[in-house]
Amino acid sequence: MNAALPRPMPQALLDALASRFGTQCSTAMAVREHHGRVEGSIQAPPPAAVVFAESTLDVQDAVRLCNQHAVPVIAYAAGSSLEGHLLAVQGGICIDVNRMNRVLSVNAEDLTVTVQPGITRKQLNDAVKDQGLFFPIDPGADASIGGMAATRASGTNAVRYGTMRENVLALEVVTASGEAIRTGTRARKSSAGYDLTRLMVGSEGTLGIFTEVTVRLYPLPEAVSAAICSFPSIEAAVRSVIQTIQLGVPIARVELIDVNSVRMVNAHSKLGLREEPMLLMEFHGSPAGVKEQAETVQEIAREWGGNDFEWATTPEERTRLWTARHNAYFAAVQSRPGCVAIATDTCVPISRLADALLDSIAEADASGIPYFLVGHVGDGNFHFGYLIDPDSADERARAEALNHQLVARALALGGTCTGEHGVGVHKMGFLVDEAGAGAVQMMRAIKQALDPNDILNPGKIFAL
Amino acid sequence: MNAALPRPMPQALLDALASRFGTQCSTAMAVREHHGRVEGSIQAPPPAAVVFAESTLDVQDAVRLCNQHAVPVIAYAAGSSLEGHLLAVQGGICIDVNRMNRVLSVNAEDLTVTVQPGITRKQLNDAVKDQGLFFPIDPGADASIGGMAATRASGTNAVRYGTMRENVLALEVVTASGEAIRTGTRARKSSAGYDLTRLMVGSEGTLGIFTEVTVRLYPLPEAVSAAICSFPSIEAAVRSVIQTIQLGVPIARVELIDVNSVRMVNAHSKLGLREEPMLLMEFHGSPAGVKEQAETVQEIAREWGGNDFEWATTPEERTRLWTARHNAYFAAVQSRPGCVAIATDTCVPISRLADALLDSIAEADASGIPYFLVGHVGDGNFHFGYLIDPDSADERARAEALNHQLVARALALGGTCTGEHGVGVHKMGFLVDEAGAGAVQMMRAIKQALDPNDILNPGKIFAL
Repeated sequence: MNAALPRPMPQALLDALASRFGTQCSTAMAVREHHGRVEGSIQAPPPAAVVFAESTLDVQDAVRLCNQHAVPVIAYAAGSSLEGHLLAVQGGICIDVNRMNRVLSVNAEDLTVTVQPGITRKQLNDAVKDQGLFFPIDPGADASIGGMAATRASGTNAVRYGTMRENVLALEVVTASGEAIRTGTRARKSSAGYDLTRLMVGSEGTLGIFTEVTVRLYPLPEAVSAAICSFPSIEAAVRSVIQTIQLGVPIARVELIDVNSVRMVNAHSKLGLREEPMLLMEFHGSPAGVKEQAETVQEIAREWGGNDFEWATTPEERTRLWTARHNAYFAAVQSRPGCVAIATDTCVPISRLADALLDSIAEADASGIPYFLVGHVGDGNFHFGYLIDPDSADERARAEALNHQLVARALALGGTCTGEHGVGVHKMGFLVDEAGAGAVQMMRAIKQALDPNDILNPGKIFAL
Repeated sequence: MNAALPRPMPQALLDALASRFGTQCSTAMAVREHHGRVEGSIQAPPPAAVVFAESTLDVQDAVRLCNQHAVPVIAYAAGSSLEGHLLAVQGGICIDVNRMNRVLSVNAEDLTVTVQPGITRKQLNDAVKDQGLFFPIDPGADASIGGMAATRASGTNAVRYGTMRENVLALEVVTASGEAIRTGTRARKSSAGYDLTRLMVGSEGTLGIFTEVTVRLYPLPEAVSAAICSFPSIEAAVRSVIQTIQLGVPIARVELIDVNSVRMVNAHSKLGLREEPMLLMEFHGSPAGVKEQAETVQEIAREWGGNDFEWATTPEERTRLWTARHNAYFAAVQSRPGCVAIATDTCVPISRLADALLDSIAEADASGIPYFLVGHVGDGNFHFGYLIDPDSADERARAEALNHQLVARALALGGTCTGEHGVGVHKMGFLVDEAGAGAVQMMRAIKQALDPNDILNPGKIFAL
């Protein structure tokens, strides 16, 4: 997959790490393999050692030592990346930041919180809910906040609350030379120089390692209601969504679930959902506001043949529904024993969503590859999961061909190859198609200026 | 103000520009001086020539020629910058993009529009209002969209709709070598590589010249109401705002106007506003939603001693009020004939807003310098305007001292030296105080990588 060969691993570096970190550094094969495995179909040799960082200073020292030896360094937390971000494709050292999982300061009055990178989104929400606050970004997996910032993650709530791009206010970043810098303040807005925060968000570990993350919080909505609506066709569901967004309804979540996914989720989560394409929606606001939003959307849905909403208003019912949605991936993988899922991640302008989806569904149906389809359709973002036999070169080739057609279509419609997963090693070719050689060259120039030895997660996003 | 001397201006470059651009290039002193003057107190010699670009290709050719001669190039549109961004502090060529003011494509269904950089925000709003859409970012001046993107502008609506950071989706940028690149797609979100769009937004012309800007539009709200509320003190007004924001009320505008500003605006705009500190607010939404928001805020305001809201519900009344607000700057300058205003731009976390404001007001009162104070207080952003005699070195020094104290206080409270005006030549020292030498060095490294001859608006943001 990646032509770059592992770089030399000097024994002197391993000795220096052992001396500096003692039991915080492991070269045990089981530990290394755990940190070199990722979801999906790509594999690479494990990192040569894993440093369990407990402080910014630990990260700085590990990076400094690696930089002295020009050895790659890869940050690791929840391990939920889907694009091979965590693979040591050129060898190197893994810095595990899971022990850096503290909430450093909650500023409830400002609706901000500063955390260490290893905290997961669920841990963060547990820590702030007693103050009537929540962190909305929800990519499904219980990902770490550091990893979510590094991949510019988003998920089900982004249609209302934005992505990590909008919700990270500031970072502490350890640079390639081991210096710790801050990229912003807690002010809600600023025009003070280059937007280093946004440059770092989505840089996939290639420009620095995050050691503190300041994100926005939101008041827990006074009222929350979740509704399911089944439709006679995917097109009818999607047209309803398009109209909802165009009307400016501040819907908090609107997920498309195709009939394949409904069947798989029913089997996996023991649910009795109607086996038709459906939208799973959530409304946040005041009781009156939620009612008004829901009535508007119900009216739109009816025009497209949607059924009456089925409501989940208690927290337990809502959790059950959203857990089922988040388990769609696992439900799908279990539906074909031994398979792996190749997940796509295109995102298109909302007006082109039906075009993008319907043609790609037709192609997937014609291919004979089992698949499921879910989508954060309020943003124009959707995921096919092609369920292939990992030992079948033929199935892999057919799934890759489907993905290529899908991406080409999304780009032609003014969209992107990746709405939220990132480029990693999987989408390096697609990035050039999307951004153009000139823009990728600009990224490369920035990388070379900030990381002259190319030690920070090399071989990701673009080839140097 | 800036130590860098003008660089040599080769006659060969002027000849090449004249040959390429003919009557689109002017070296007339009146034209040059018009393009070398800015609001505020700094002056510099005018640019050596002005190129009136009519296309991306014009910009590319002008930049290429300047790059060949290592001569600075400065983009110019509305000329409303407040921080000396447009000054040719090292000499060079001005590229006037005012003729590039077309709407290239409205995508009403996607709530996006792509424009040329010279279009102003009012022109843009005129162009899209018939489709029931608007562009909310409103810095007061009728600034160009290109300039607003370059300074990461915001203004009165940012509390609800965000700043240019959140609202620019993609750019076409001419780089230092004269290449045109695109920084993004029309998809609402993307994880495709480094966020070049956000890196460019706020780069103040130092990383590239924008030739196309794609921004988000919003459906015109079904209902809009504006209200004035007077308070017994600034503190009472500010505490009301803090509570409103903390409750998550989606207020569209909330402006603080101090009693000095009220007096000046009354005199200038022939209004009879009650001469007390006031909040000028606007609510957007459904009729029921607007009513609900307003009732919540009225209740909060009453607890802090605020009066009953005075309403402006017709478009004409609202326009009159907001025009008065936007004219506060001119009203203030006219209140002291011959004076100039030194405008501050700090922004702090909302919980620290009262602290930041009250201490700074006390200092300003004690100084004896006439001043006015207005603020986008929902964001924690506020502006003092110190009205000084431009010929009095003493007054200038006292105003600068006030500004230094104000910025130091904002930074100590976790804020920024500039919420929306940018760094320009004025705030280069403050940027180092705020971001730290390491972060500024990172900005410098990016600049050097993307503009090796330092031709793009040199001498701004930081010294190389």
